Amino acid sequence: MPEILEQEDNQLRLQQINAAIDSGMFVYVRNLFQEMPAYDLALMLESSTSKTRLVLWQLIDPDMHGEVLEELNEEVRKSILKNMAPEKVAAVAEGMDIDDIAEVLRTLPDSVYQQVINTMDHQDRTRVEQALSYEEDTAGGIMNTDTITIRPDVTVDVVLRYLRLKGTLPESTDSFYVVDRNDLFIGSVSLSSIVTARAEVIISTLIDDDVTAVKADMPEADVAQLFEKYDWFSAPVIDENGRLVGRITIDDVIDIIREEAEHSLMSMAGLDDEADTFAPVVKSTQQRSVWLAVNLVTALMAVAVSSMFEGILSELAILAILNTLVPSMGGVAGNQTLTLVIRGIALGHIGDSNSRLILYKELAVGFLNGLIWSLVIAGVVVLWKQDISLGLVIAFAMMVNLTVAGASGVLIPILLKKMNIDPALAGSVILTTITDIVGIFAFLGTATWLLSP
Amino acid sequence: MPEILEQEDNQLRLQQINAAIDSGMFVYVRNLFQEMPAYDLALMLESSTSKTRLVLWQLIDPDMHGEVLEELNEEVRKSILKNMAPEKVAAVAEGMDIDDIAEVLRTLPDSVYQQVINTMDHQDRTRVEQALSYEEDTAGGIMNTDTITIRPDVTVDVVLRYLRLKGTLPESTDSFYVVDRNDLFIGSVSLSSIVTARAEVIISTLIDDDVTAVKADMPEADVAQLFEKYDWFSAPVIDENGRLVGRITIDDVIDIIREEAEHSLMSMAGLDDEADTFAPVVKSTQQRSVWLAVNLVTALMAVAVSSMFEGILSELAILAILNTLVPSMGGVAGNQTLTLVIRGIALGHIGDSNSRLILYKELAVGFLNGLIWSLVIAGVVVLWKQDISLGLVIAFAMMVNLTVAGASGVLIPILLKKMNIDPALAGSVILTTITDIVGIFAFLGTATWLLSP
Repeated sequence: MPEILEQEDNQLRLQQINAAIDSGMFVYVRNLFQEMPAYDLALMLESSTSKTRLVLWQLIDPDMHGEVLEELNEEVRKSILKNMAPEKVAAVAEGMDIDDIAEVLRTLPDSVYQQVINTMDHQDRTRVEQALSYEEDTAGGIMNTDTITIRPDVTVDVVLRYLRLKGTLPESTDSFYVVDRNDLFIGSVSLSSIVTARAEVIISTLIDDDVTAVKADMPEADVAQLFEKYDWFSAPVIDENGRLVGRITIDDVIDIIREEAEHSLMSMAGLDDEADTFAPVVKSTQQRSVWLAVNLVTALMAVAVSSMFEGILSELAILAILNTLVPSMGGVAGNQTLTLVIRGIALGHIGDSNSRLILYKELAVGFLNGLIWSLVIAGVVVLWKQDISLGLVIAFAMMVNLTVAGASGVLIPILLKKMNIDPALAGSVILTTITDIVGIFAFLGTATWLLSP
Repeated sequence: MPEILEQEDNQLRLQQINAAIDSGMFVYVRNLFQEMPAYDLALMLESSTSKTRLVLWQLIDPDMHGEVLEELNEEVRKSILKNMAPEKVAAVAEGMDIDDIAEVLRTLPDSVYQQVINTMDHQDRTRVEQALSYEEDTAGGIMNTDTITIRPDVTVDVVLRYLRLKGTLPESTDSFYVVDRNDLFIGSVSLSSIVTARAEVIISTLIDDDVTAVKADMPEADVAQLFEKYDWFSAPVIDENGRLVGRITIDDVIDIIREEAEHSLMSMAGLDDEADTFAPVVKSTQQRSVWLAVNLVTALMAVAVSSMFEGILSELAILAILNTLVPSMGGVAGNQTLTLVIRGIALGHIGDSNSRLILYKELAVGFLNGLIWSLVIAGVVVLWKQDISLGLVIAFAMMVNLTVAGASGVLIPILLKKMNIDPALAGSVILTTITDIVGIFAFLGTATWLLSP
């Protein structure tokens, strides 16, 4: 019976490796690394500080460097490439898939890029430059060029004999592409239909109607959606003239799906989705401070609004104490709606046809929640301070703010999307600014009107 | 040249369909639906309100119902199943994959479930009950049972002849599983190695060392990680005795990856990751109110802390005005760290071996950011109010709170994880409570000490 995989304890191994490096047992670590798949080595590098990372990198078998680079997240990969000589980068690139070499080269500074390209042999250079001619986030940018093509008029028997002669197939081949003499794409034939067909069957009769080609300039997010929609394992890529130029396999698509899903989470906290968990302190501080600066400006706007009510705040200290309550609840309620709508837009649930429906729905939810929490908070305040007018003031402000929060949670991301601004990045700040300002106005404004001594 | 796929405009079509339904053109919609893949139909249902959804469902060809149910998100699926008679559910289930039937049946109430099971024929019932015997979120729960098995001692020629006799292979077959007479799993042979081998080669020599079997009780998240790690397209599943029981294909794994990545985003806003975007208002209000209740409690704790400083707040209204600034910046900074750490834990970057490293790093980042924003905010306050002591007070509070925010952003998710509580769900509330309370204490406490008239 073969080895049965249990989820290895990456953390435990990391601990052992760190201990071994601390005591200088480099040979031990080098041997350990030789038995680990590239994915695990990449995980290990991503889980280390930038200093340890460079030591670990040196201990990885250079033959594995290419594969490990492929698996690394962008920021960590950059930090490693920065420390490599151009000839070394070129040497590593030799063993890599074309789409991955292109991805690596894209992250290099121009001068290093030229040096790397110059050290490559002619054939590699042409292939890489062709791959680089496509935009990064398109079908052309993620495709591989190692396709197997066949003519429509040959028989199954001819294909099988050709395959036996060839001996091996490109990784994850599940189908062959049928092209004419000019490389024009005709269709796709699955490996399984070839092995189940009789020997004399003509290839053109086996073409799979469900598989259509994607254009090289299609955005990668659309490619990923097609893969999910039709449960494809691979798809042919054609240029603007209908010529076959490569194929995309599902393992590349998985990376896109994961990155997209992570993007919203990270952006909503003002982080880059490729952020290096263990980036150096100064770099992290710089990256975070932009977001903190934006938030300081919005917080100061809230302060400016409060300061308009300095008079009543100095007369009634209880207003100062309760002043955070309404903005805080509005922020939470608004962020719930915002998150739902951002996900809805990303999944294709929300668009022009039903944006009004979701607005009505969230307005109603905001109003109902406003009603519930107005009553609760009014009850708390009346019991605590024995002051019915104060209870009324805060209840009214809460109603207004939660309703506004519901509307803003829908409108902000939809408007940002129309303006081509990423709602996940900017939505939360704008929303909080609105719920802060409306909350303070509603609370202190009503208080000035009803409670002024 | 075949049709070239561009991303269809789902929203445009939805608009047309809604218009058609409003004007009673049901036959038109029914015909339109017949040309749409299940994925698009599911998207359409998910993008509609619960009322329209039931009308649309009636217009979908019943033969497609099973496939559409497979694609729907859980909450929407439940809302549709609730309105179907048990016999209808049983009829729909007939055309579905075993793993999908099991998933659907799991969401049914017990009484309906029994009725559905009783209307199935014996063979289906046995297969479904076997699938249901595995936990929902394990390899056994997501596998299919339609594997092709071969004996180790036959030749490639025999296999090819057998496949031709069979005529078709189960969907997305990329390899066959080699088993002995007792169904004990021996290894996996890829379709591509069979077509490239000579006819007389013995199967046992073609076994792929890279593919190992997954145990039926392995959690699905671990299965997904193995697929990513080894770039598998499919994997065999075995029971505790090493017997082959099924196979998992990558299209099921993609769903798991997407759900996991969405989970953090939705949980951090207190939403269920299977939430229905267009759920009825009352249901949505209920779901949201739990989270708002939790936040009200934490906001009231902040209020209680502020009220301890009622004396100085009534003397210096400027403190009331500035009181939101320090908690707000702490909340934002803390949430950045929290999000980074939650992602780091999910990706396996952060664990016992390096939790101390990330704590030191985020403490340093928090301290540095505290320093920067202390200086900025002190500058603003001194220029605005010409009050150096006030500037000192708020600068000190900001330093303390941002440093605490950095530490909390690391410690809270790590501790929650150890207590088996989902950090994405509870982390943000606890963090905000801490940064609010520490922020208010630091600001008003220092103010009481330094500024009391």
